[in-house]
Amino acid sequence: MHVLIFGAAGMIGRKLTHRLVSDGRLGTRQITKLTLHDVVQPEAPANAAMPVDSVASDFAAAGSAARLVVARPDVIFCLASIVSGEAEENFDKGYSINLDGTRFLLDAIRAIGDGYKPRLVFSSSIAVFGAPFPDKISDEFFNTPLTSYGTQKAICELLIADYTRKGFLDGVGIRLPTICVRPGKPNKAASGFFSNIIREPLSGHDAVLPVSEDVMHWHASPRSAVEFLLRAADIDGATLGPRRNLSMPGLSATVGEQIAALTKVAGPKVAARIRREPDPAINSIVSGWPRTFEARRAQALGFKAAEKTFEDIVRIHIDDELGGKFVA
Amino acid sequence: MHVLIFGAAGMIGRKLTHRLVSDGRLGTRQITKLTLHDVVQPEAPANAAMPVDSVASDFAAAGSAARLVVARPDVIFCLASIVSGEAEENFDKGYSINLDGTRFLLDAIRAIGDGYKPRLVFSSSIAVFGAPFPDKISDEFFNTPLTSYGTQKAICELLIADYTRKGFLDGVGIRLPTICVRPGKPNKAASGFFSNIIREPLSGHDAVLPVSEDVMHWHASPRSAVEFLLRAADIDGATLGPRRNLSMPGLSATVGEQIAALTKVAGPKVAARIRREPDPAINSIVSGWPRTFEARRAQALGFKAAEKTFEDIVRIHIDDELGGKFVA
Repeated sequence: MHVLIFGAAGMIGRKLTHRLVSDGRLGTRQITKLTLHDVVQPEAPANAAMPVDSVASDFAAAGSAARLVVARPDVIFCLASIVSGEAEENFDKGYSINLDGTRFLLDAIRAIGDGYKPRLVFSSSIAVFGAPFPDKISDEFFNTPLTSYGTQKAICELLIADYTRKGFLDGVGIRLPTICVRPGKPNKAASGFFSNIIREPLSGHDAVLPVSEDVMHWHASPRSAVEFLLRAADIDGATLGPRRNLSMPGLSATVGEQIAALTKVAGPKVAARIRREPDPAINSIVSGWPRTFEARRAQALGFKAAEKTFEDIVRIHIDDELGGKFVA
Repeated sequence: MHVLIFGAAGMIGRKLTHRLVSDGRLGTRQITKLTLHDVVQPEAPANAAMPVDSVASDFAAAGSAARLVVARPDVIFCLASIVSGEAEENFDKGYSINLDGTRFLLDAIRAIGDGYKPRLVFSSSIAVFGAPFPDKISDEFFNTPLTSYGTQKAICELLIADYTRKGFLDGVGIRLPTICVRPGKPNKAASGFFSNIIREPLSGHDAVLPVSEDVMHWHASPRSAVEFLLRAADIDGATLGPRRNLSMPGLSATVGEQIAALTKVAGPKVAARIRREPDPAINSIVSGWPRTFEARRAQALGFKAAEKTFEDIVRIHIDDELGGKFVA
């Protein structure tokens, strides 16, 4: 089978690519070709058993997606998007990439016609939800995003459901929790501190905590995110019915519980590298974010997180990113 | 104040125009100019006290909305759309008018900038909801439309909330119940029979009932629809907060209750003009439609239906469309 990834140069895209190359298959089917796409040319993985094409172009430009879709890939991962902070700052750019780009992709698939109906896996976000929330957000809670990013994701979810219903493609949208621990450098996301306070201390650096310890949020490790994408690519579409977008399982933890987990796994000296510097602006943004979900449908459909506790999330970061070691 | 209506030649648009001309004001403000737009030139009402412009152009074409928005109307009603049946038959046309046209309008308003922030009243639909439903659909139930029309309305709702949040306009979306009794000839809507079985017998004609009498649905009279639009135009946006789209009050009735109301108001001879001709296709479509809502937010915000019972709905039709008389 031929797998195409839009947004392959991003953090999740690279991990997904690595996993597909290392597995050599998706579900029971052998991967015979891999095409990677991003606005910068994604690095082709070394030692891949299958041919790998790597392409750079502007996802938001008409025709970009169509040029790759014409090869009729069997599975298409759409991870391409700009992050929430950037979509909020740059209104036109957000709509252009996160909405119009995705729509070009959907229409490119539809234009092939001819019975072509690939599985499209779309990475959505819990940003489709906006406060006030119930204690736990159920699978039937409505979408009232409070950011342009969340609005764009919610619109793409609606489009994917409608294009699927019409038989133009076979789409699945998955709402990823906030990814923690996010490796690498901080990006423009206001959620950055959730990862910073774990990642930086483990590498011997100080980290700033801008919110109070009772702030609760919904997390999943990068390893879980890849698991969710693989499950979404492989699931029987008939089991989903017309409701094609799913809140993914995750782990609800307060910042205090995050710090306790770090202390338990790496010791108090590491946790002492967290500096409290309250930032009312970030506190206010974060107070509008979801805290806990009941992701019953996704669980029933076989979506499984790689972690059971926040300590697992800390350990996964140490194992997957730090070669099993940290700066004590 | 200057009022602009897109979709002014449609059934609701004409009733709204008539009401605005007859009131001469909207809330406490005097109407000093009225601009009517549709794909065919709307008939300008006779004896209007204010200047009335009537314009025909394609709502789906870039620039159409902008040419009218440049006059900075204070209130814009967006009733322009193609109906569900047509949007389902013609995928491209549906997205072009119901989504792209609306987006052109939003962007035309935003492009003025300069503090211009009109009230935009958008007519949405209960088609944003899709089965299976709870017994009553609450204000927080999620949108899983089962038609392209419903998808397009749900997307426009999201856009209106986001453009409002960003301060580009001051939008209110109202989800109208199925309008009953719809005057005039049947259109392409599968919901046509809900009106046909009242309207046709009252005019001495037979009507076909394609579903069973236990089918329950959510109705409002054309008079209520106009009341809802006027309230949406006048409401203080601050009382709405960021959730700008509201399910309107309505009246839940089974087809059996509709027929009983017709019998009570007009007598058994009129009701006997209804012919039962079950149509499994229409039955199947209608079984996916909402039956009852709890429109608590809208009620608390002062949206009020003109009728309390289905008998009222029958009487409103006789009064407003038949000059108080029917064919006994």
